Amino acid sequence: MGNLDASVKPKLRKIVRRGRATRQSPAIVAPRTRKIRPYALLNDVALATVEEQADWILQNIGVEFRGDQVALEMFAAAGANVQGQRVTFKPGLARDLCSTAPSEFKLHSRDPANTVTLGGDNVVLMPGYGSPFVSDLEKGRRKATLKDFQNFVKLTYSTPWLHHSGGTLCEPTDVPVNKRHLDMVLAHLTLSTKPFMGGVTSLERAQDSVDMARLVFGAAFMENNAVMQGNINVNSPLIYDDTMSNALRVYAAANQCVCVSPAIFAGAMGPLSPAAVAAQTLAEAMVGIALAQLVRRGCPVVFGSFHSTMNLKSGALTFGSPEANLATMAISQLGHRLGVPVRSGGGQVSASNAADGQAMQDSTGAMWATLLSGTHQVWHAAGWLEGGLVMSYEKFIMDLDHCGAMLTMLQGFGVDEEAFGRDAYHETGPGENFLSTQHTMRHFASANFQSDIPEAGPFETWSENGSPTTDQRATSRWKQMLADYKKPAMDENIQAALNEFVATRKASMPDEWY
Amino acid sequence: MGNLDASVKPKLRKIVRRGRATRQSPAIVAPRTRKIRPYALLNDVALATVEEQADWILQNIGVEFRGDQVALEMFAAAGANVQGQRVTFKPGLARDLCSTAPSEFKLHSRDPANTVTLGGDNVVLMPGYGSPFVSDLEKGRRKATLKDFQNFVKLTYSTPWLHHSGGTLCEPTDVPVNKRHLDMVLAHLTLSTKPFMGGVTSLERAQDSVDMARLVFGAAFMENNAVMQGNINVNSPLIYDDTMSNALRVYAAANQCVCVSPAIFAGAMGPLSPAAVAAQTLAEAMVGIALAQLVRRGCPVVFGSFHSTMNLKSGALTFGSPEANLATMAISQLGHRLGVPVRSGGGQVSASNAADGQAMQDSTGAMWATLLSGTHQVWHAAGWLEGGLVMSYEKFIMDLDHCGAMLTMLQGFGVDEEAFGRDAYHETGPGENFLSTQHTMRHFASANFQSDIPEAGPFETWSENGSPTTDQRATSRWKQMLADYKKPAMDENIQAALNEFVATRKASMPDEWY
Repeated sequence: MGNLDASVKPKLRKIVRRGRATRQSPAIVAPRTRKIRPYALLNDVALATVEEQADWILQNIGVEFRGDQVALEMFAAAGANVQGQRVTFKPGLARDLCSTAPSEFKLHSRDPANTVTLGGDNVVLMPGYGSPFVSDLEKGRRKATLKDFQNFVKLTYSTPWLHHSGGTLCEPTDVPVNKRHLDMVLAHLTLSTKPFMGGVTSLERAQDSVDMARLVFGAAFMENNAVMQGNINVNSPLIYDDTMSNALRVYAAANQCVCVSPAIFAGAMGPLSPAAVAAQTLAEAMVGIALAQLVRRGCPVVFGSFHSTMNLKSGALTFGSPEANLATMAISQLGHRLGVPVRSGGGQVSASNAADGQAMQDSTGAMWATLLSGTHQVWHAAGWLEGGLVMSYEKFIMDLDHCGAMLTMLQGFGVDEEAFGRDAYHETGPGENFLSTQHTMRHFASANFQSDIPEAGPFETWSENGSPTTDQRATSRWKQMLADYKKPAMDENIQAALNEFVATRKASMPDEWY
Repeated sequence: MGNLDASVKPKLRKIVRRGRATRQSPAIVAPRTRKIRPYALLNDVALATVEEQADWILQNIGVEFRGDQVALEMFAAAGANVQGQRVTFKPGLARDLCSTAPSEFKLHSRDPANTVTLGGDNVVLMPGYGSPFVSDLEKGRRKATLKDFQNFVKLTYSTPWLHHSGGTLCEPTDVPVNKRHLDMVLAHLTLSTKPFMGGVTSLERAQDSVDMARLVFGAAFMENNAVMQGNINVNSPLIYDDTMSNALRVYAAANQCVCVSPAIFAGAMGPLSPAAVAAQTLAEAMVGIALAQLVRRGCPVVFGSFHSTMNLKSGALTFGSPEANLATMAISQLGHRLGVPVRSGGGQVSASNAADGQAMQDSTGAMWATLLSGTHQVWHAAGWLEGGLVMSYEKFIMDLDHCGAMLTMLQGFGVDEEAFGRDAYHETGPGENFLSTQHTMRHFASANFQSDIPEAGPFETWSENGSPTTDQRATSRWKQMLADYKKPAMDENIQAALNEFVATRKASMPDEWY
C-alpha cells in the first residue's frame, strides 16, 4: 500500500523524460478566487441570533472611545447615544451605518499584475503580522531586525502563494519605535509591488504612511483608489483607544482601506463561548466600520477579527482549537451578511515553540476553517509561531506550501469528459496501469499541486541523509528564494522622493524606544 | 499579542484553584454523532455527472472477477452481462442491486457502551491499518510484532477518541502469515470491547474470524446483528481477485459488515483527475456492494475508498494533497446519495517519514476533508506514517488529540442565552477582563477541548527542557496509557473457548511465511 508496484516505476520515468524534453514548467500563477462554495456552519436563524446579541451588546453595554472627542461627536451626530466616552446604539443603527461600505473593491499595486480584489469570490493571503522575534534553524530565535523585515518582504514578493505584502511582518526592533513605520513602508513600497499595510501606532505614523504611498501612486489616484490598508485593532473588550481611532480616521479620510480587527481571547476579553466571541467581534467591528463610513462614506473597509482560545485551566493561549475554528467559520458568515470583505481570524497560527507537528496541526486546521468558510483576506497565512511572538523562516516556507495547496483546492475540479479520461480506459483495462496512457501524458505535468520543499525520499535514503524533518528541509528554500530575489524596478525620481521623505522625517524627531 | 496581560494571570489561578477544590474532571466520553451539517463540495448536477461516468465505466469497461465462478454466476443471474471473467452492467443496474443495503446499522460490542452506529449523523473513528513497520522515538523504526499489535489494540481501547478497534493495526510479522488472523482477532476480542475488523486474506481466514466472533457473541445473535467488519480491498483498476471476493462472500453470508474499498492512486490505478477517481471508486464499490447484497439481501455494507495522489514527476506517493482531499469530499457526497454508510478515504495520512510538520499538515488537511464532508467511518485516523508503511506510537498520540479536537468541532456550538453570557457583560464592562466573571466560573472547566499531550510551556522553560518537539512530548503519553491499561473482563468459558479455537487452528496447519 505504501509504494507503487515496482513495475510502474520504469514507465513513469519514461513519461517523465518525455515530458521534460517537450515542455518547460510554466511560471506559477496563484489563483485569486475561489470556485468552490463556502461552508455554511450556521443556519440563518442561528446567524440572526448572533446578530441580535451583537445589537444587545451595542445597546446595553456599548463601546468606549477613549480620548477621541472627534469620534464621539461623529457618533452623536449619527444618532448614537453618547454618554461621556461611552457610545451605545439602538438595534440596527450600527449595521445601517456600515451599509455605505463597498462589498468589493481593489487594492491597487504599482504592478497591475499584483492588484488584488477584496470581497466576492476573491481570496487574498498575507504573511504573519507583528512578531517581535524571528527564528531560523541556523541562528535560532532572536529579536527581529529591519534586515529580517526586509527579508520577509522579499520572500513574500517572491512567492506566488501570498497575494499581499502584509504589514508589520516582524518588528524591526533595531529601529527606534517612532521611526519604524518609515522603514517598513519604504520596504513595502520599494522591495515589493504587492499591496501592503501602513503604520497605525499614532496619527502621525498613519499619515506618514499615506503620504509615502502618495509619492508612489499620486495623491489624485489615491483619492479614488485604495492602495494600502491600516490594521485597526480594537482594544477588546469594547474599547477603541485614541491611537487606533485616530489612525482609523486617517486611513478613512484618505479613502484607503480600514481593516477593523477586534482581538478576543475567549474567556479573557469576552465570554468564553464561540457564540459570544462571534457576537462581540461583530459588535466591535461594526462600530469601527461605522466610524470609517462617518469619516468618509464609501471608504473601503474589511470586517476583521483576531480571536483565539486559552487553556482555561493553565492559562496557556491556544490556537487552531476547535472552539476557535468554529468562531472563525461563524465570523466569515457574519461578514458575508454584513456585506463587506471579511478577515475571519485564523490563518496559519499556532502556540507551538517550533515548526513541529503541533504547529502544523494547529495551522492547517485554522487555515481550513478560515478558507473553507469563505473568508476574503487571510492574515498570518505564513511564518507565525509561538502565539505570534515569532516569525519563523522555516515555518514560512512550510506554510507557503499549504497556502498553495489550499488555493489549489479552492479551485475544485472539473467533471467534464476530459477529466474522466474515457480514452484511458479504452487504452488499458481492468488490472492495467494508467501511467503510460495518453490521458496521463496530456495532464501529468500540471495535474497535481507540487510542494516546493525538497522531497524526503524513501526511509532508507532519508536516514542516510540524517533524517531531516520538513522544517530542516525547508531551510534551503528560503535561502534560495532570498538569493534569487530581484528588486522590482522603480522610477528613480520616486525612489529618491521616498528616500528623502524618510530621511527628513527621521531627522525631524529624536529617537524614541518606547 | 502572544501573551495575556500579566494582570490576568493571578485571577485565572484563583479560579483554577477554586474549580479544582469543588469538582472532579468527569470521564471523557467522545461524541459519536455530528451536529454540524456536512460540506457539500459538488452540486447535484456535478454529482449526477460523476454517477453517469461510473455507469459508463460499468457498461463499457466492466469489472473482472478473477477465479470466482460463484460470483460470476450470481451477477449473471442478477441481469449483468458476464463474458469470461468480465462483468458489465447496464446503467443503473449496479445501483439498483445496492438498494437493499441498510442506510444505517449498528456494530455491536460485548460492552453495550461501545456499540457504534454506522450511517446517519454518526461518526466512527478508527486507528491505522496494515503497516508492516512500527516506530517510536526510543527504539526507532522496526518490523511490527504481535506485541506491537496488542499494544495498539490496548491504546485504541484506552482512548475515548477512537470508536472502533480497527483491523490489522500493524502486521504481526513475527507470526506466520497463515496464523496472524487468529492472534489478531483474539486480541481484538479479548483486549478490547470496541468493534473490530476480522481477517480477509483467504476464505478460511475470514471464516475463522467469523467463527471466533460467534464464540463471543453467539451464532444466533450474529445472524441478525453485525459485530465485525471485513475490509474488502478492490484490486483497482476494476479487478476483484478471488481472495477478496471469497472473503466478501463469507462476511456477507454471515450478515457481518462488508466494507468495499477501491484502492486508487490517481494516475496509476485510474485516470489522474479527482473526478475520475471519484467515478471509478463509485463504480468499483457499487459492484462489491451489489455482490454482498446478492449473497445476502440487507447485509450491512460500507461504501469505502482508499485513494491518493502521486508526484507525477518523481513518482513519490503523496497524501493529504488538495486533489486527494477534493476526491475525498466528493466521495462522501456520492456515498450519501448511494444511501449507505461511507468511508471516503482520508483519515490522518501522510507520506512523511517522521511525525513532523509535514506529517501533521498532510494528516490534518485529510482529516478535515474526511470529516467535514460527512463521512461515517474514518480509517487511518491515528498512527499512520510513511504512506502506511509505519504505525508510529508518537503520531498515534498526536493524531488522537486531533481526533478529539475534530469530534469536538463537529458538535458545533450553541447560540442560546447562556452561551452569550450577558451577565458577564453586566459584571464587567469595556476594557475589563472576563476571567473572574461568574460566567467563566460556570464554564471554564468544560468549555474547551484540551490536548492530552504535556504542554510545551513558554519558550524559556521549553528551551531549558531541551526544546522537546510535540512528538517527543507524546512519548510519555503512550507509555502511560499502556501502563494504565486494564483488560476488560470476559467470561472465563468464552476466553477458554477462544484460546482453544486458536490453538486447534494453529496446530492444524504448518507455518507459512508468505
